[in-house]
Formats: sequence, C-alpha cells, structure tokens
Amino acid sequence: MEFVRVEKTDGIAKVILSRGKVNAINEFVIDELTACFKELAGDAQTRAVIISGQGKFFTYGFDIPEFLNYKKDEFLRYLTKFTDFYGDVFLFPKPVIAALNGHTMAGGCMIAIACDYRIMVSGKAKMSLNEINFGSSLFAGSVEIIKLWLGQKNAETAVYNGAMYTAEEAFQLGLIHQVCTEADLEANARGIAKQFAAKDGVAFRSIKHLLRKPLADEIKKREKDSLLEFVDIWYSENTWNNLQGKTIQS
Amino acid sequence: MEFVRVEKTDGIAKVILSRGKVNAINEFVIDELTACFKELAGDAQTRAVIISGQGKFFTYGFDIPEFLNYKKDEFLRYLTKFTDFYGDVFLFPKPVIAALNGHTMAGGCMIAIACDYRIMVSGKAKMSLNEINFGSSLFAGSVEIIKLWLGQKNAETAVYNGAMYTAEEAFQLGLIHQVCTEADLEANARGIAKQFAAKDGVAFRSIKHLLRKPLADEIKKREKDSLLEFVDIWYSENTWNNLQGKTIQS
Amino acid sequence: MEFVRVEKTDGIAKVILSRGKVNAINEFVIDELTACFKELAGDAQTRAVIISGQGKFFTYGFDIPEFLNYKKDEFLRYLTKFTDFYGDVFLFPKPVIAALNGHTMAGGCMIAIACDYRIMVSGKAKMSLNEINFGSSLFAGSVEIIKLWLGQKNAETAVYNGAMYTAEEAFQLGLIHQVCTEADLEANARGIAKQFAAKDGVAFRSIKHLLRKPLADEIKKREKDSLLEFVDIWYSENTWNNLQGKTIQS
Repeated sequence: MEFVRVEKTDGIAKVILSRGKVNAINEFVIDELTACFKELAGDAQTRAVIISGQGKFFTYGFDIPEFLNYKKDEFLRYLTKFTDFYGDVFLFPKPVIAALNGHTMAGGCMIAIACDYRIMVSGKAKMSLNEINFGSSLFAGSVEIIKLWLGQKNAETAVYNGAMYTAEEAFQLGLIHQVCTEADLEANARGIAKQFAAKDGVAFRSIKHLLRKPLADEIKKREKDSLLEFVDIWYSENTWNNLQGKTIQS
Repeated sequence: MEFVRVEKTDGIAKVILSRGKVNAINEFVIDELTACFKELAGDAQTRAVIISGQGKFFTYGFDIPEFLNYKKDEFLRYLTKFTDFYGDVFLFPKPVIAALNGHTMAGGCMIAIACDYRIMVSGKAKMSLNEINFGSSLFAGSVEIIKLWLGQKNAETAVYNGAMYTAEEAFQLGLIHQVCTEADLEANARGIAKQFAAKDGVAFRSIKHLLRKPLADEIKKREKDSLLEFVDIWYSENTWNNLQGKTIQS
Repeated sequence: MEFVRVEKTDGIAKVILSRGKVNAINEFVIDELTACFKELAGDAQTRAVIISGQGKFFTYGFDIPEFLNYKKDEFLRYLTKFTDFYGDVFLFPKPVIAALNGHTMAGGCMIAIACDYRIMVSGKAKMSLNEINFGSSLFAGSVEIIKLWLGQKNAETAVYNGAMYTAEEAFQLGLIHQVCTEADLEANARGIAKQFAAKDGVAFRSIKHLLRKPLADEIKKREKDSLLEFVDIWYSENTWNNLQGKTIQS
C-alpha cells in the first residue's frame, strides 16, 4: 500500500492515511482503504480499528485537481467506490475509532462520521461538510449520517452553511465524542479502542447491526440516484468554475 | 389576492398573511398561498422567501367558526389542500424563512415548522400545536415534522399537553432558530434570507431534497388516512361541542 | 394473577409487579401482564395506567436461572411473547406511566421505555440495557425505542457500554421524564396519570398512533429475525457460560 499504513498492536489495528500534506483522497486511497478494511474484518487478531491521518489534516477531502481530469463516468465510478467505502465503515463488524488529528473536511468528514467513536484534537483543526460553498451537493448517505449525530435542525444548519466547526463546537453539537490535546490523541484513542475491544465481539456486531442496518438499507435505496445528481451538479458550469478556482488555490 | 400580500425586494419575496385580527386560515387563504408559492418557485428573480403575519398573530390556525359550516367531504377537501400546502413548503426548492410576528397556533404552527428557518418575536407570542385541548387529532405530516425538530420525547410532551411555548421556550426546545425583538424581526429575517440566498441555488435545492424528501415520501403514504381519522374525530359529538364552544368564544 | 396486582382508583389503574426480591421476569409474568393490559385496554373506567414494581427493583430483567432450563424453541416462544408485550405497551391506546421504584434493568428497561412517561426514584436505583456485558444481543424493538429517547449517539454509548444510569443521569439523557424521591413517587405518578387522563381519550389515542405506529410497523418487520439472532447468541458457548455465572451469583 502506498497511501495507507497499518500498525497492529494488542488486538488494535491503526490505519493511517498518508498522502501529501493534506491527505487528499483519490481513487487509489479509497482502493487501498477498502482492501485494508476488508483484511481487518477477517483478521481474527484484530478486535478494534483506529483510523487517523498525519500532519495537520485527517483529510482535506477529495483531491479536486485530480478529479478535474476525470470524465463523468470515471468520476461516477470513483464516487460509487467512495460511498461504498463509507458504507463499509458504517457497518464494519468491529469497532472503528476515528482519531481526528487535524482538519476533517468534506469527504474526510463523511468517513469520520461513519465510525463508532470520534476523538478530535483541540486547536486549529476544523470539521465540516462544506460542499455547498463551492456549489456542490452531498450524497444521500452522508446526509443521513450527519442527521444521525446532529439531528435534523443542526444538520440542516451545518450543511446549508458549510460551517467549519472546531473540536469544541463539534463536541457541543454531538458530532464527536471527545476533544483532546494533540499529545493525548494517540493514548486516548487507544484507550477507547481497548474499552470497545473488551466487549463480547459477537454481541457487539449484532447490536451494531441492530443500531445501523435499517438506515444503511434505506441509504442503499437512494445512494445511486444521489450520485447521479451529484455528478450533474459537479460538472455544471457554475460548480465547475468554482472547482477550477480551488485548483489554482491549492 | 385578498388575504396574501407579496413584496419582492433584492431577490427576496416576502409573503404576508393578512386576514382579520388573527389571520385565521380558511380555504381561500390556502388557495392563495398555494398559488403564491407556485409562482415564487418559478420566478427566477426570487432566491429566498420570507413568510410572516400581521398584528399580534402569525396565525391563530383554522377559522373554526367558518369550518363548522362545512360538510365532512368539504372539510376533507380543505384539509387535503392544507396538508398539500405545508408539504409544498417543506420541499420548496428555495429557502423559506418564517418571520413569526406573533401567536403561531395549530395550523399556523404546522406551516411554520415546514419552513427552513424560524425567527420569533419575544414577548407574549406563543407557539403551539394545541389541538388535543379541544379534542382534535393532528395530521401524519404535522406529527412527523414536529418530531424532526423536538425529537420524540419533547414532541410527545408538546402534542399531549398542547403546550403553549414562548419564543424563548421554543428556542430551548429547538423548535425555532432565533428569538428577537419585534423591532428587529424584519431586519433579522431579511438578513437570514440573504445568507441563504447567497448560496448556490442548485446545490441548495439538491441538499434540501436529500435532507427532507425521504420523510416527505413517508408522510405521503400516511397523510390521507390521517385526514380521514382527523375528520371522524372532528365531527364526533365531543369534539364538535368543544369546537362550537370556540365559536362563541371568538 | 400471581405476580401482577392491579389497583383501580379514580380512573387510574396501577399495575404492580411482585415476584420475589427482584421482580425477575419469567413467562408467567409476561402472560399475566399481557392479560392485564388487554383487560385494561377494554375497561371503559380506566383512563390511564401506572406500572410499577415493589421493593428495590422495578425489575431485574429476565429470570436467567429459570431460562437456562429452556430449550431454544421454548425460549424463542417466550421472547416472542415478551417483545409482543412491550409492543402492546408501546402502542397501548391509553396513557401508560412507568413509576420506576428501583433498579430497571435489561428486559425491565425495555418495558419501561415503551411507556409514555417515566418517573424514577433518585438514590441507588439504576437504569440500564446491560445485555452486552454478559455477551447478549438486544432486540430490534428495544434498540429502536432506546434510540427514540436518547438519539443515535447516546443510544450507541448506552448499549455498547451497558452503562448503569442513575435517575439523574437518565433524566439528563432524556431517558426519563422526572426524578423524584421514593416518598413522592406514588403521588407524582398519580398526578401525571391524572393530567393524561384529563385529555380527550379519542384524540390521545389518535395522536399516539401518529407518533408511534410508523416505528412500530418498522419494528415488526425486523423483530422476528432479531429474536432468532438473539437466541443463537444466547446459546453460544461464550454467552452461555456468562449466563451460568449469573445463576450462581444470583
């Protein structure tokens, strides 16, 4: 794997995104993450998973400059992989803890909110579904999952404003479970992972299924249509111009 | 239009209910509102809508004395129009801000909670789904939408008690987004409308659809049956006597 | 009835669980409760129901030592009766107030959360869905109903940890409606029951149906499958050993 590192210790697998300064997500990243989580699901030694980033970013979200070279059908192929992946995380049969080391934006936020527990560093890091601010829509699954944590009212505010939340604000909203210092992130994430890992794995998987499968089934019915609409808007003149602005800037 | 005024300025359309002292809703009001929102949906110049009342009332709700002259099938026809209208508002393709200038009762509350943002004046004004207190039921859609904002527990309390909430209480419960003075209502509503209007309209519509369409579809499946039950209860001896009491009182 | 007493006063029926020191639930208890609630549904004099326990327990939950003598198909028969019963309570056509006089554990918690209003005594009493801690799963209905009151985030925390909540904590989470002293429980529960009883009974039933029937229908689709999985896990080697440990202990 080129962009994803895995470290296994004491029944805990730590998955680390590492691609450039901002851990921008491209198709290779999603292919590697998908393979990695598949392996971990079947690994009898792994009882809990931590996912984290490196540097100042958990991830910036999609690698927009790279996707501007994609044709519509290629981008749809990628989006299908991406949404399948966050669906895998949402129903992953073992606990998944997101150790949010830095900015957790757009597609990165979607992955984080599919996990079972989120710890985020206080300070400059922000969490956001900011798609509306460059004229982009969202996916059915991402909207349903943000509604789970924030409730309808705050979810509407979050996605209509594209608001950037500090860890403290995200905690107040119920978007994350814990705020900590950068120095404590590793130990705290590992502590939480161990608490989850100590529970009966079969009971955990069954209960998680009861908690989340009905919504996952609803999402599946509508995710594909939402991708088609997302692609249409992405390639519309207005949004395309906004996206090119983001290329030059980055 | 006789009971609905529309003022358009800077891409914002303000819709003002004006029917007597309490803005009581009858079939003409709903016909006019429906036509008005249809026009605004298609008006390329309109980027956001404000809906408000006049005097001490946003609206008192249904014009009960008038409806006591309706036969069952006529009342069902009206209720279908009414619930279709709040459904139109709930999925309106542009932002709708409710500027609640006064009491927001029963059917008026149902219209308000279908909007995207609610500002309410502090003071004597109350917000309530008080139907149970005269022995009336509610509609499937109104129950689902109040649950969206209050959650199941507070929604149950609200509709079982028919509680009258001040703006401050409504804000605490998450039923409204902002409390302001009467003097600030116009400017604040316009400020919020401009914030919404500044967002990409296509992305907004798509995201709003993701946020609300699944629930609207569920409501549609059950709304008609709920109207039939509502009508049966409305014309039952007990409730009918209560309603006539309200006639004399008003 | 052997384990369930009913006292009727002023239109309020009080149902009291009384089986040993911990009011452990077995098949006879559920048969009696089911018959009792059926009678109360049809009793024109009864306008509201209070359900309570005796001593230090509302109920401990299932009588595990007794169920260890059940074969799989017998246990499935019991579970079907049990989940049917909490389903009956959830949709009971009259108000049901839970007067939680003491510990409200596992299956006992499931019955409590199906009621319309919960008052719990402060002090040592705890409320918990602690099944995961002996390697047991939950039922689809119980998970959906705990999600109703706590929201997804706190519901996940509650059932993944099997956390034991004091009345104060349960109130903070929205799991109960009121905390009171042991001395006040009877009067307060009766006061709330009277408030509910004062409302129009037909309107109450109709509104309760609007508030809860759609979820009850969803639960029904999935409850049976969840019982089958629950049974498989219950009789698995790991969980069975945990359950025998609880036998010796109790």
